[in-house]
Amino acid sequence: MAQQNRNPSTWGPCAGDVLGTYLRSQATAFLRGMRQYSPSAASGADAAESSDAARSLRGAARRISGSLATFRVVTESSWADGLRAELVWLSSTLADEHAYAARLARLMDALHRLSGSPELPAPRGSAGALTVGSARAGALLERQLTLARTRAHSATLQALGSSRFHAVADAVAVLASEVPLDAVAARGPVAEVLVPLAAVAETRLSAAVSALPPISGCEAAPSPYNADHDGLWHEVRRLLRVHRYAREVLGEDVTRPAAAGEALNRHRDAAEAAAASATAARTPRIAPATAYALGVLHADQRHEVEAARADFQHLWLREPAGHTAVTAG
Amino acid sequence: MAQQNRNPSTWGPCAGDVLGTYLRSQATAFLRGMRQYSPSAASGADAAESSDAARSLRGAARRISGSLATFRVVTESSWADGLRAELVWLSSTLADEHAYAARLARLMDALHRLSGSPELPAPRGSAGALTVGSARAGALLERQLTLARTRAHSATLQALGSSRFHAVADAVAVLASEVPLDAVAARGPVAEVLVPLAAVAETRLSAAVSALPPISGCEAAPSPYNADHDGLWHEVRRLLRVHRYAREVLGEDVTRPAAAGEALNRHRDAAEAAAASATAARTPRIAPATAYALGVLHADQRHEVEAARADFQHLWLREPAGHTAVTAG
Repeated sequence: MAQQNRNPSTWGPCAGDVLGTYLRSQATAFLRGMRQYSPSAASGADAAESSDAARSLRGAARRISGSLATFRVVTESSWADGLRAELVWLSSTLADEHAYAARLARLMDALHRLSGSPELPAPRGSAGALTVGSARAGALLERQLTLARTRAHSATLQALGSSRFHAVADAVAVLASEVPLDAVAARGPVAEVLVPLAAVAETRLSAAVSALPPISGCEAAPSPYNADHDGLWHEVRRLLRVHRYAREVLGEDVTRPAAAGEALNRHRDAAEAAAASATAARTPRIAPATAYALGVLHADQRHEVEAARADFQHLWLREPAGHTAVTAG
Repeated sequence: MAQQNRNPSTWGPCAGDVLGTYLRSQATAFLRGMRQYSPSAASGADAAESSDAARSLRGAARRISGSLATFRVVTESSWADGLRAELVWLSSTLADEHAYAARLARLMDALHRLSGSPELPAPRGSAGALTVGSARAGALLERQLTLARTRAHSATLQALGSSRFHAVADAVAVLASEVPLDAVAARGPVAEVLVPLAAVAETRLSAAVSALPPISGCEAAPSPYNADHDGLWHEVRRLLRVHRYAREVLGEDVTRPAAAGEALNRHRDAAEAAAASATAARTPRIAPATAYALGVLHADQRHEVEAARADFQHLWLREPAGHTAVTAG
């Protein structure tokens, strides 16, 4: 087995040992999540447990596919490429239902906060009309996002019953006991094999961060509603996750990428929520008061997007990035 | 005349000299502005000159009433109280027309900026519907604010033709040559009469600033749309102006209060613009796309309110306030 391939010329464990241990533990987490996940759970406690299981299933799937991407050459590459593509499909399918539920919760929270102030709707005169607007906007969003969530739930059930899913589960079950490794690369020392590959992932991340357009900031935002650049940020989020998992493989501290990743999750969530609000506003025959509340909500979420970008830059760019930094101690 | 009332016991000029010089120069500016102001000017150059004249007329009226308030006991108080009330009436009447024009310009700029991004209206799919919304929102605001401006213009013309205005103009003409002073207080030294009175104005300002609720900040605004606290900020703006004019009387540097005052002007303008957008959204029978654009605009202007509050706190609270601070030289 892989962990036995020790390289006699080095003191530490070889690349295959380290990567194999990580992949096996993630595969085990994937299988445990799969067993505990019951997407038809209706009651409170079961539903909560199933939701936790789904989260850890998605997390394990992302970690396996992320580390197979970074450390591809240490594994049997064609096997890794195939499994990776299937895990990306699976985790994105599983993520949809959760994403719609979370988006609805975020938008309802925002509406609640916004209409908590009697001044929002009608700074002068009766506030009635637009509190009604907020309530109607909430009902409209709930209808649209619940429908989307129900569709995503059906898609999840269909995916879990598919032969495609069973093939993925089988592949992960194999991975839990034996990781297909490249015979030569796996025997190399960690410092010469895994560390440079992790550095490549980090360089990609740094390049993507450098390519981000300057954020508009809070004081003089030139165009906080412009979603043109969202894609560049979403790509940074993806690369940061890959970088974080590479650090996990190497047993390094991930506090900072995890915190910065949280900011980028908020960024993605707010951008999607703003888009959902704009989409809802295009529903035919809605009342002007509803549309007004959706406009306020859209702008609010775009400002959350800006705030998340500022948070990320604060968390990520304040100190020099990278696991190669010298740690005093 | 007042400037002759020197106090033989001090080296410097007496309180009456200093206050009298300031009030006479402001009264002269008032009269010059009045001569050059022609509210019926239609052509470009004349209209621009008249607008400048109106601004300096308003500025002089505010400076006279502000310093009469701060240094009331140095003047004939009953005369000062009467003139002050009339100047407040006049400057607020004159300010309305300008305010509606500026509010419309601010809202049109914001709409232009917001719809400059094709993503604002419809992040997915055709952007057509809500660019139309922005255009309609602009047309609606233009109609409403132009009407308000026209009414304010009529009110200005009516005020300028009134006997009430002529009485104010006569009083200011008297002030330009001779300031009615309190015989005793005016003979006191500046440091014992004017400086303590200016300090009272500054203490009032400091108390009002301390009483401001904590600002929500840019990252986690709990309720940026809440206009409940606007009044407290508008009061700080008024007190800051009074403080600034007191410093002007004493010949002190006003760079900092002027800059902080600019932030509070932006605060007031953005709050009024947000209110105008909310009011427009309550127009019966508007299209949902129009209401949506007005909602975005409202939220945008409330965020400008927040940004102006942050600017003020940055400008005003960063260093200890007050003209008593020791200046390194």
